[in-house]
Amino acid sequence: MIAQFQVQTRARDDWADITRQVREVIREASIEEGVATIFIPHTTAGVTIQENADPPLKGDITKVLNRIFPWTDNYNHCEDNTAAHLKTCLMGSSAQVIFSGNEPLLGTWQNVYLCEFDGPRNRTVIVKISP
Amino acid sequence: MIAQFQVQTRARDDWADITRQVREVIREASIEEGVATIFIPHTTAGVTIQENADPPLKGDITKVLNRIFPWTDNYNHCEDNTAAHLKTCLMGSSAQVIFSGNEPLLGTWQNVYLCEFDGPRNRTVIVKISP
Amino acid sequence: MIAQFQVQTRARDDWADITRQVREVIREASIEEGVATIFIPHTTAGVTIQENADPPLKGDITKVLNRIFPWTDNYNHCEDNTAAHLKTCLMGSSAQVIFSGNEPLLGTWQNVYLCEFDGPRNRTVIVKISP
Repeated sequence: MIAQFQVQTRARDDWADITRQVREVIREASIEEGVATIFIPHTTAGVTIQENADPPLKGDITKVLNRIFPWTDNYNHCEDNTAAHLKTCLMGSSAQVIFSGNEPLLGTWQNVYLCEFDGPRNRTVIVKISP
Repeated sequence: MIAQFQVQTRARDDWADITRQVREVIREASIEEGVATIFIPHTTAGVTIQENADPPLKGDITKVLNRIFPWTDNYNHCEDNTAAHLKTCLMGSSAQVIFSGNEPLLGTWQNVYLCEFDGPRNRTVIVKISP
Repeated sequence: MIAQFQVQTRARDDWADITRQVREVIREASIEEGVATIFIPHTTAGVTIQENADPPLKGDITKVLNRIFPWTDNYNHCEDNTAAHLKTCLMGSSAQVIFSGNEPLLGTWQNVYLCEFDGPRNRTVIVKISP
């Protein structure tokens, strides 16, 4: 089973919580136990599994990544978004969530986030359910 | 088949070799060929597949990551471990090991490591065997 | 089904496009829908899914990674390639491509690249097709 949904991001750097959508795809699948592969078909947005509790943490992560990968530099890329590609490489284009009894085996503090690095945009998320 | 085991880390930054445990899970599964998804249900510890030969390399990697993501900075996160979250984003929360004939297809120099970034702690590792 | 192929890289830092080979493995598999796990059994080369359109972008990414992870530093590793291990950690040793109707569900701008960080070398790529 392959599912797909859209996410609207709101800023150049943004975190979109997609845990609810991933949970729904897992529930809709008729498999008791398996792996959900969450794939982002874009090159300037990635996916990560990170803390859901303290909102300022996400601002910290964004700030540090912007220091390491500054938006403006002597880049040769024809677009001005090289930093967004670098941050996507760091986060990765896919994440895995193991599930059992139709529920994701995420830790207490873990949620799944689409990481926007060149927004705001409408982004696609693809989820494959595997046994 | 889903397996789970615990790992005790020994320092704030630590590398715990979990190759033996992953290999055992693969052998216990009754599948000839497949993928083991190794998932860390924590937000300040990750997983990587890296060199098993020269111990100082791990100290080098730790040192460089601590320079890029300093422990103390002007973070707003309510805990003092923002750097640990950043390093977990870089390493990732899951790794894949392809296996055949009940043996992992790892390269000669590759082992699987839980990467502790906010230890010492007792950590959980979840392994899903997929066909 | 597990497939394996070789890639010859041409420089210390290199990007080898392996999209065609991954696509062929997916077509040869007799599975309509699934996930291809692309695994690099090396510790100084990784894999990423990134932009296929503007060649200078790859040079930008290489340049920034070399600034963050300089080749020469006070490393203790017995080889001189600690930076290559660090870049491999950042990119990761595996990538996932979801496919349907025997075609990879990659975004318009996405290709799959082996990232060489200690070449030129002959590298192995392992691809597992899962349902």
